[in-house]
Amino acid sequence: MKLQAPKGTRDYYPAEMAWRRYLEGHWRAVSIRNGFEEVDGPIFESLDLYKVKSGEGIVSELFHFTDRGERELAIRPEFTPTLARMVAAKANALPRPIKWFSTPNLCRAERPQRGRLREFLQWNVDMLGMSEAIADAEVIFTCVDLLRTLGLRPQHVKVRISHRETVRAILSKLGVPDEKMIDAFDLLDRRDKLPVEEFVKQAGNLGLDEFKVERFSQMCRRRYPAGDVDHLERSIGIGAIPDLDALDRELSAFGISDWCEYDLGIVRGLAYYTGTVFEVHEVSGAERAMAGGGRYDKLIELMDGPPMPAVGFGMGDVVLSLVLTDKGLMPSNVMPPVDAFVIAADDAAKPQLSLVTATLRAAGLHTRLSYRSTTNVGKLLKDASSCNARFAVILDAKAAALKNMTTGEQVEVPIQELAAKIQGR
Amino acid sequence: MKLQAPKGTRDYYPAEMAWRRYLEGHWRAVSIRNGFEEVDGPIFESLDLYKVKSGEGIVSELFHFTDRGERELAIRPEFTPTLARMVAAKANALPRPIKWFSTPNLCRAERPQRGRLREFLQWNVDMLGMSEAIADAEVIFTCVDLLRTLGLRPQHVKVRISHRETVRAILSKLGVPDEKMIDAFDLLDRRDKLPVEEFVKQAGNLGLDEFKVERFSQMCRRRYPAGDVDHLERSIGIGAIPDLDALDRELSAFGISDWCEYDLGIVRGLAYYTGTVFEVHEVSGAERAMAGGGRYDKLIELMDGPPMPAVGFGMGDVVLSLVLTDKGLMPSNVMPPVDAFVIAADDAAKPQLSLVTATLRAAGLHTRLSYRSTTNVGKLLKDASSCNARFAVILDAKAAALKNMTTGEQVEVPIQELAAKIQGR
Repeated sequence: MKLQAPKGTRDYYPAEMAWRRYLEGHWRAVSIRNGFEEVDGPIFESLDLYKVKSGEGIVSELFHFTDRGERELAIRPEFTPTLARMVAAKANALPRPIKWFSTPNLCRAERPQRGRLREFLQWNVDMLGMSEAIADAEVIFTCVDLLRTLGLRPQHVKVRISHRETVRAILSKLGVPDEKMIDAFDLLDRRDKLPVEEFVKQAGNLGLDEFKVERFSQMCRRRYPAGDVDHLERSIGIGAIPDLDALDRELSAFGISDWCEYDLGIVRGLAYYTGTVFEVHEVSGAERAMAGGGRYDKLIELMDGPPMPAVGFGMGDVVLSLVLTDKGLMPSNVMPPVDAFVIAADDAAKPQLSLVTATLRAAGLHTRLSYRSTTNVGKLLKDASSCNARFAVILDAKAAALKNMTTGEQVEVPIQELAAKIQGR
Repeated sequence: MKLQAPKGTRDYYPAEMAWRRYLEGHWRAVSIRNGFEEVDGPIFESLDLYKVKSGEGIVSELFHFTDRGERELAIRPEFTPTLARMVAAKANALPRPIKWFSTPNLCRAERPQRGRLREFLQWNVDMLGMSEAIADAEVIFTCVDLLRTLGLRPQHVKVRISHRETVRAILSKLGVPDEKMIDAFDLLDRRDKLPVEEFVKQAGNLGLDEFKVERFSQMCRRRYPAGDVDHLERSIGIGAIPDLDALDRELSAFGISDWCEYDLGIVRGLAYYTGTVFEVHEVSGAERAMAGGGRYDKLIELMDGPPMPAVGFGMGDVVLSLVLTDKGLMPSNVMPPVDAFVIAADDAAKPQLSLVTATLRAAGLHTRLSYRSTTNVGKLLKDASSCNARFAVILDAKAAALKNMTTGEQVEVPIQELAAKIQGR
């Protein structure tokens, strides 16, 4: 019998776990300093919750099951339905704007592939109760704050922003009839995965002539710098777009225009986005989207809550880790540092090992002790060194010595003063 | 339509989430300072993994399902099988002793009741590769370190320790035949839930006469202080128990005897424990066990690994929270503190709000801004005060003022020096 982790899931041994905590720690610190409050929900929800939001089709992508009370349940494939349910349930009691973040583990019953696993972590950042562009800009700023904190720069990654109502207006002006609008969005969403001829053929099916297919194609492949929305508006020739004008001003006000660009080819697959949509991409296009989000002004109502504008995004850990690794931005050692390593230099000191260790730990110091039978100080100091301890505490029958493992300096210290000495007091 | 959290699960709004992070943060800090390294595994495992450890009977207690590849999977009801699988898979590559902790969410398909939910968190602490009593004592010390850190004291909670082989020897001496030993353990495990007459009746079924039932009953209801194992050994009259002697010395060496007592009625329901077993109880017996664990020296082999002694425990969040609440030890405010709240005192300053906020956040400060249209400084300072901000930053057309919200002191500060000033540099 050989038992393994299920397909598409991960075992986190200490090194992998430290790396996961490094990412999660930054997600959390960035969220908090941007004024978001943390929330979480159950690992499974009623299957109905996902059907309400995404239709029956979602069921095949879920791990679902029935409990003994015949309730249909599913492991969460995303956090937004839970968030929407929680907001709807207490909408009137929650001060606005609601600014929430979470870092749930999510599961999807998909075929695992590069950048996609069956279980993954996702950072969710959402701002509800404000329709103004400052909310869109603030969630994008929070996303950029994380990218910058991890060492990424605008030459590595870009936030690509679009606006669904604007795209709809352009498509309409090009002559796409309303009943084919969903097909047109779907085609946009898949454009990077299709060969050019196939794209042209499918655009033809929307009722566009050759010239308009060409315009459609250009429009959705060209990118325009943020901070100069006029440029975009002149190019596509449908006049000023008030939502994008306001967003462009706010992105400048937050000082992140250089991280952003407009890309009308971004539509996001999920049907519930209503206005601004965006994705974060590694600039060379080497990986899937690192994050995606946008406005979903109708969802809280759909979940039986009051009308409530909302904007947010999700960022998974899988593609983020691939990009950071590729850029050499994964720190080599993120294990918690060891403060002290306690050893006995003779057998008479051994009964002291546990008590000295206990005393240092009670003072909050990360303290390890040697479990080996040897009292060879040279060998034991090697153990201290191999776990990167800052100090070694060397006990013998009469006294305790404190050795600074960086400088090599060694001094005798009364046991009751060891903790203070290590803490530099 | 009214969508709710599934039965037996919890929604974590910001206040509940802050409390959860408070507990998890202490679990993690205590684990790390005691030299344990963090691990985690998948939220679901092969159903077989649980059958190997616990038999077919476990299936009815699990949320289980089948994926599209017809694999039978189950949401994890405990972490130990995952840990054993992970250790077995890399046993030869891992330095010994292996000291691991984790804080997984776990799910059990049980009827929810006080102290038991269908989804809960559990702190797991395990030490593998050492059979010496210092390992048992160190995991118990780590447990006590957590309890003490949260403000609990020996008069509130006790670690009740037993030893399965010792109990087996006593039962054998009393005359329980080998083939009834499992029934006897089972009866011990349920003793607190049974009326005395029922206990006596079932003990009679083990083949014990009235006198021996009485001795059995006394033995498993009496408690003996740690630090004086002789007392226990004299009372039960089966001579010295080397494992308990060694453990008793180590508990004294770690300085935690006053937190511990011997209670031979503790057997733990799980079949795989082999030596020392223990539970943490609120002393009045008001709640279920707060934690439970012990030695499981055969499990890694069962999971296809090498022979490997092991000792560990699990502590859930549900009973722990009940006890802390009951003792008044839940801090009233564990929300992350707000460093600065940025407001505009006139309309001309409003375009500055975002940029000043962005600058402070980039410096690592938890910064909030006012989204309100008013420029009434009195009202805006009330907002700053109600989120407990340490400082208010008041922008007007010409300058920025920094107001210490505790002292009320207000000084004019150039915008580029705000962050340093707030950080006290």
